[in-house]
Amino acid sequence: MQATDPVANLAALIRCPSVTPAEGGALSLLDNLLTPLGFKVDRVMATEEGTPDVENLYARIGTQGPHLMFAGHTDVVPVGDEATWSHPPFAAEIAGGEMFGRGAVDMKGGIACFIAAIARHVEKHGKPQGSVSFLITGDEEGPSINGTSKLLEWAAAKGETWDACVVGEPTNPDQLGDMIKIGRRGSLSGRITVHGVQGHAAYPHLADNPIRGMLQLTHALMDPPFDTGTDNFQPSNLEVTTIDTGNAATNVIPSKATASFNIRFNDTWTAETLRDEIIRRLDEAAADGALRPDRSPVKYDLVWADRPSHVFLTRNNSLISSLSGAVAEVTGNEPKLSTTGGTSDARFIKDYCPVVEFGLVGQTMHMVDERVAVADLETLTRIYETFIERWFDHAIA
Amino acid sequence: MQATDPVANLAALIRCPSVTPAEGGALSLLDNLLTPLGFKVDRVMATEEGTPDVENLYARIGTQGPHLMFAGHTDVVPVGDEATWSHPPFAAEIAGGEMFGRGAVDMKGGIACFIAAIARHVEKHGKPQGSVSFLITGDEEGPSINGTSKLLEWAAAKGETWDACVVGEPTNPDQLGDMIKIGRRGSLSGRITVHGVQGHAAYPHLADNPIRGMLQLTHALMDPPFDTGTDNFQPSNLEVTTIDTGNAATNVIPSKATASFNIRFNDTWTAETLRDEIIRRLDEAAADGALRPDRSPVKYDLVWADRPSHVFLTRNNSLISSLSGAVAEVTGNEPKLSTTGGTSDARFIKDYCPVVEFGLVGQTMHMVDERVAVADLETLTRIYETFIERWFDHAIA
Ligand SMILES: [Zn+2]
Ligand SMILES: [Zn+2]
Repeated sequence: MQATDPVANLAALIRCPSVTPAEGGALSLLDNLLTPLGFKVDRVMATEEGTPDVENLYARIGTQGPHLMFAGHTDVVPVGDEATWSHPPFAAEIAGGEMFGRGAVDMKGGIACFIAAIARHVEKHGKPQGSVSFLITGDEEGPSINGTSKLLEWAAAKGETWDACVVGEPTNPDQLGDMIKIGRRGSLSGRITVHGVQGHAAYPHLADNPIRGMLQLTHALMDPPFDTGTDNFQPSNLEVTTIDTGNAATNVIPSKATASFNIRFNDTWTAETLRDEIIRRLDEAAADGALRPDRSPVKYDLVWADRPSHVFLTRNNSLISSLSGAVAEVTGNEPKLSTTGGTSDARFIKDYCPVVEFGLVGQTMHMVDERVAVADLETLTRIYETFIERWFDHAIA
Repeated sequence: MQATDPVANLAALIRCPSVTPAEGGALSLLDNLLTPLGFKVDRVMATEEGTPDVENLYARIGTQGPHLMFAGHTDVVPVGDEATWSHPPFAAEIAGGEMFGRGAVDMKGGIACFIAAIARHVEKHGKPQGSVSFLITGDEEGPSINGTSKLLEWAAAKGETWDACVVGEPTNPDQLGDMIKIGRRGSLSGRITVHGVQGHAAYPHLADNPIRGMLQLTHALMDPPFDTGTDNFQPSNLEVTTIDTGNAATNVIPSKATASFNIRFNDTWTAETLRDEIIRRLDEAAADGALRPDRSPVKYDLVWADRPSHVFLTRNNSLISSLSGAVAEVTGNEPKLSTTGGTSDARFIKDYCPVVEFGLVGQTMHMVDERVAVADLETLTRIYETFIERWFDHAIA
């Protein structure tokens, strides 16, 4: 296979139906592309009770530093209603200058381009003046338990260290070159249960309606705002994502109500200080009891969901400038350095080395008819190739 | 059968498993008790598309006025977990001076006592100095569509008119003689849907969280209070009985949220003025949009549930004084004249004649081990018998 062609690389990857947690042939394909280039490839199975086993891949060319990592995922989200796709989701058909397929931009396309970039680099210059690694997971779109974090632990345990990382997620809102992500907000979720006493709506004094307390608690989570944003981040934002009671009887006061919330937070907070602030708000609202007939305190439980995603910001100038310089050189655009959007596996990598994210245009990700402009694949390959050269020049100078 | 014994009457009634909408033999039993006393008995089937057919009974003794109606229901609520009853729910077993069974107090007991009372009256005095009727439904605990309201229409259509009515629901909170109900609050229910736009919690500006608006709307329904009560009624009270979103995904902003509410209202309001006030509150809160990032108006739908129950208050002095005088004479207690509690079929009857409610002690109604003190059955029979005499004396004088 001609690994230097990102279009061929991507078509082959799309044809692997690697919906999380299925490997779908995608990692074998990477193995077949990278081994001939001189990479040492490891396939790493990660397991944890109660979660599906997931296969991951780590590949390195070179044995010395400086050491550049490219990180990404070959797993893709489900296709949804396949009948609504205008081209089959695992066929990689090209029409109107666009290649259609699940994962086209998120993020088999990014992987296809980085492989083409390193293949061209090796073709022109031989092995890099240091090391380049691929850290590829099959569990980014799933629970992210048997993916990047376990693979990093596995690699670190055998002595791997890295100097910088690029994650190939689709970071550009509209056009290739718009945006590099240099950090991410943190994410913290929780679930509140308010306890009451069931009873007849005609006899509210014999019951205790938990919805009264729930309104107070959720209001306190939403107002006032947590902060007004920082130099690098937009304001933290909390959404109550669900409130449920499940009471079908109009005349019955329910015995409990539950609500979940998710907050995307900036570097005003750590997950720990934010938890304290949320508890402070809930306790204050609960003590008030304003909506309750006797103004007695609201009885509630709070359970923190999952592990929080910690906020991070990358300040490594040579990494950022190598990448933004490459983007500017190839596209003529000065990319915006942003911290917006959801979390990504960069949240795990940031504990090992400076990390930024740059890939394709994300508009169709997770949607029916996910697709990529074929021209963008060549452009992104040239950006990555230029970046690799610039980064090693910086790192060695 | 010896209709003068309320204990025998009730035992026979409890043994009819007349869980709504089943007749269970209960109306046939009444037929067999009332016909020998000289009542003309009609069995009236009521039907409506989408609801179960229900059999009802109307029985009258006498052809002239004044005309006294006794109203009630032979249907009962389900027994729940039969294994948790200490005596079988349809066996009418007596233990510790109490008769156990579903419907013992709500309200086969009331019917059993009124039959005994009129049987004793006929035994002593012959036919009453006017007419006495039984208006008995099998659809009080169900949707109340094929019950009292249809039976009243049927009777009115054939020319029946009444001068007063006693409903035999269990009105006494603790002791026989505590309380006569002379009115009821109205009841009005509605369902709100707030519309938003689904999206990812990390990109709230691309979504529109309906929970923000829902918190504002439901808060406006709860606060401030609707009134502070009136001479005869406690304050109107609104309960939000359920709020639901059904969103299991922590990271997803939902597309809509729903809530239901029920208000028990006093004679400050009619169902119509109260609807206007609720719409005014919702529109005002919706226009505010305070919890929404752009403060734009909340988009919501409101659907009124079912038919409202209208508030009513009976001011017929001879009816109230005959009954409270009978209670005082038999028990020595001056009963409280109350308008508290849920709705009852009196809400339908009040459009035809003055109506009050008085029956047994309600503590175990709808519960496991529903039961009545056997002594209360004799006491209530004597109250009803005394009431019948007093009321006819009043009405004829
Ligand atoms: Zn992705
Ligand atoms: Zn009842």
